[in-house]
Amino acid sequence: MAVGKPGMRRASERPIPDDELTAADLREIWSILSLDEKVQGFRVLPREEAEALLFSLTNSDLTKLVLALKPSDRRYWIRLLPPDDIADLIQSSPAEEREGLLGLLDERARHEVNALLAYSEDEAGGLMNPRYARVRPDMTIDEAVSYLRKLARQSLGTFSYAYVLDEQQKLLGVISLRELFVSGGDRTVRDAMQTGLVTLQEDVPQEQVSRIFAETDLVAIPVVDAEGRMKGVVTVDDIVDVVQEEATEDIQKFGGMEALDAPYLATGFFEMVKKRGGVLAVLFLGEMLTATAMSHYEDEIARAVILALFVPLIISSGGNSGSQASTLVIRAMALGEVELRDVFRVLRREIGAGFAMGGGLALIGFTRVVVWQQIWPIYGKHYLLVATSVALSLVGVVMFGTVTGGLLPFVLKRVGLDPASSSAPFVATIVDVAGLVIYFTVASAVLHGTML
Amino acid sequence: MAVGKPGMRRASERPIPDDELTAADLREIWSILSLDEKVQGFRVLPREEAEALLFSLTNSDLTKLVLALKPSDRRYWIRLLPPDDIADLIQSSPAEEREGLLGLLDERARHEVNALLAYSEDEAGGLMNPRYARVRPDMTIDEAVSYLRKLARQSLGTFSYAYVLDEQQKLLGVISLRELFVSGGDRTVRDAMQTGLVTLQEDVPQEQVSRIFAETDLVAIPVVDAEGRMKGVVTVDDIVDVVQEEATEDIQKFGGMEALDAPYLATGFFEMVKKRGGVLAVLFLGEMLTATAMSHYEDEIARAVILALFVPLIISSGGNSGSQASTLVIRAMALGEVELRDVFRVLRREIGAGFAMGGGLALIGFTRVVVWQQIWPIYGKHYLLVATSVALSLVGVVMFGTVTGGLLPFVLKRVGLDPASSSAPFVATIVDVAGLVIYFTVASAVLHGTML
Repeated sequence: MAVGKPGMRRASERPIPDDELTAADLREIWSILSLDEKVQGFRVLPREEAEALLFSLTNSDLTKLVLALKPSDRRYWIRLLPPDDIADLIQSSPAEEREGLLGLLDERARHEVNALLAYSEDEAGGLMNPRYARVRPDMTIDEAVSYLRKLARQSLGTFSYAYVLDEQQKLLGVISLRELFVSGGDRTVRDAMQTGLVTLQEDVPQEQVSRIFAETDLVAIPVVDAEGRMKGVVTVDDIVDVVQEEATEDIQKFGGMEALDAPYLATGFFEMVKKRGGVLAVLFLGEMLTATAMSHYEDEIARAVILALFVPLIISSGGNSGSQASTLVIRAMALGEVELRDVFRVLRREIGAGFAMGGGLALIGFTRVVVWQQIWPIYGKHYLLVATSVALSLVGVVMFGTVTGGLLPFVLKRVGLDPASSSAPFVATIVDVAGLVIYFTVASAVLHGTML
Repeated sequence: MAVGKPGMRRASERPIPDDELTAADLREIWSILSLDEKVQGFRVLPREEAEALLFSLTNSDLTKLVLALKPSDRRYWIRLLPPDDIADLIQSSPAEEREGLLGLLDERARHEVNALLAYSEDEAGGLMNPRYARVRPDMTIDEAVSYLRKLARQSLGTFSYAYVLDEQQKLLGVISLRELFVSGGDRTVRDAMQTGLVTLQEDVPQEQVSRIFAETDLVAIPVVDAEGRMKGVVTVDDIVDVVQEEATEDIQKFGGMEALDAPYLATGFFEMVKKRGGVLAVLFLGEMLTATAMSHYEDEIARAVILALFVPLIISSGGNSGSQASTLVIRAMALGEVELRDVFRVLRREIGAGFAMGGGLALIGFTRVVVWQQIWPIYGKHYLLVATSVALSLVGVVMFGTVTGGLLPFVLKRVGLDPASSSAPFVATIVDVAGLVIYFTVASAVLHGTML
């Protein structure tokens, strides 16, 4: 939602009877209603409540609801939305509906929405509201105030800043409503405005936009084109949704699947299975290499079956340490805390962490084998050598995990792939296969001449 | 940062020479500077730049910087911060510094900060700014305007709304600066204000606060106590940081570690190893059960070594499907999309998804064994039975993974644990151990009388 809305749910002062359906009631059960029930519920809401509900829906819910309304209702409700929300709605509607939706708008809104549709939904241009208050630098403050008063009376939205543009629409500065409110008088806008603004180019991706908002704590950032002409404003309230969405996508990618684009329970069963099953199959194909690797050690296993017992323990330790490292590095990259040039600092840290943590696990593992042997003597007379093999392998496998998990995101980013969506499968496969090789190599060396 | 800052980086109109250090320059290299270098850099910045830098730092960076300044500088800079930021700073300072920092404030700020320190940092009361504009309901609009003009001239912050309170400090409604700006005249504030506000109780946790902002698209929400008395305002620009932080914490927990409370490269090595190593050791202890489980099947492995080859493949498939399901459900819980009462809907979906995806992997696995056998005949004459064991186990293990991954977050939430931090270890251990049991049970049944 691009237009800052004040802290109220209802614009009316009409008292609401206790038994009347409110937007909050309907939202509460929204996710479990069928589309028909949603439309019905929406239609019985009092007008202000319906409006509140409309503004609180996510883009995908909003689109479904608007498309399910009668044409006459559709026109009424769509015209209440700000242009950037209409553009989002049209972008997520089926191609054959788009012309019709555009046709419901008045001339000005249609023009604005068409301009926004030229941007991708996930860049600054697609997030911005093209409606904002503009003033000329040579107006006096009094002139600006009386002009903005007129504008505010006509316009639906609220605004807190007026942007100062020259004749070529180039952005010169900004003046806050508060400053106008306080100052007054016949100084010119140019004298009172603030300069040196943070601006966004139209095609800055939304991850970066949200990072800039988080870093600068600004509430509104103007969007300009390559020539410095102002195109619109992105406000911080839009960014909260962006940050939530981006985080959800990243989390789902870390969980080893494609991002769902919609809430879990609202995603169709087959769509969900496709997005999860695809990645699961890729991981499975990668993991098949473990069967190939294991078959190289068939002889060793036949001679010392005991070695097989520790396979799951050892490869899961490598996998866990690898997923810790890749999660940390990918998230830090997404937040801009780690850049490509930091690769050697990360490498140093991960070697150190792998060594320390691998050493810790080795100690636990060694102790486990020795203690067990005292109670249930199943590891045979060479149990100390078995314990040593397990311990040494753990150091190697955990270090391999942290280093691979830490470096792979750099490699993927360097070649232009998205680290978040590709690291998990690669790390899992590489670390599991390498873990087996490390384990059996170490065991062969340690047990040579005794058990092998 | 609680005070909405307008879209400018520099408040001054002084032209900046090209070679002068700016806040942006310093921020760029901030993470790689030592604390001494940070202080030095901060001190050579022009005053407005230093101010911009200060406002852009995260709470932990801000605290370190302020504590490293000379006492006289400290007093100057801390007094520029809004009370909620000062409270955060004090909360993250060592206990012995806190009195001293409070002593640097003027009487009014000290009073406000003390009130805020009574709240936990991660609830609405700890996020709010106690300074806001308040008006009485029976003022005329003209009176309110002239009162607010005076207030705006004195105060450092900006504000977009004035809150209407009665004599008991109870919140009656809100009026926007824009409305005052447009209306004027001698209507009373009561007639012009908007009612039916969304409010927050002081102790609402910050996850829920950010959810309410995301759902309602409000820019500011007043905080009230149990009696409806207004305590402060939470603004949306603070929430962007909260959402980022919460997402990072959740992602790190999903990655199988404790949340680092600071950026990756800024976290001390030993602190990081502690937070990762602790969880890694817990996972390792859990995974030790796999060695115990495997030892029960030592005889089967000795007789049919070939069974061991598929162990990593099968348990990793269970682990991957389990981590997909738990990631989806936990994130959906965090966003409020899934509640405890949805448990049966989730169960149905996950049984279906597990069956479909397990079936897909079974098909791939079966084909793999059969095709390999034609090229490298290493699986012996009973290869079709081996392929059948692998395929049937995959269906069972993947279904077990999705169901466990989908349900465990409900169980953990029900008993009051945080699903995000506890699911990964539990799911991994349960699914790996159960996967081994399923695999060897299926294989024993299928291969009975032939290979076993």
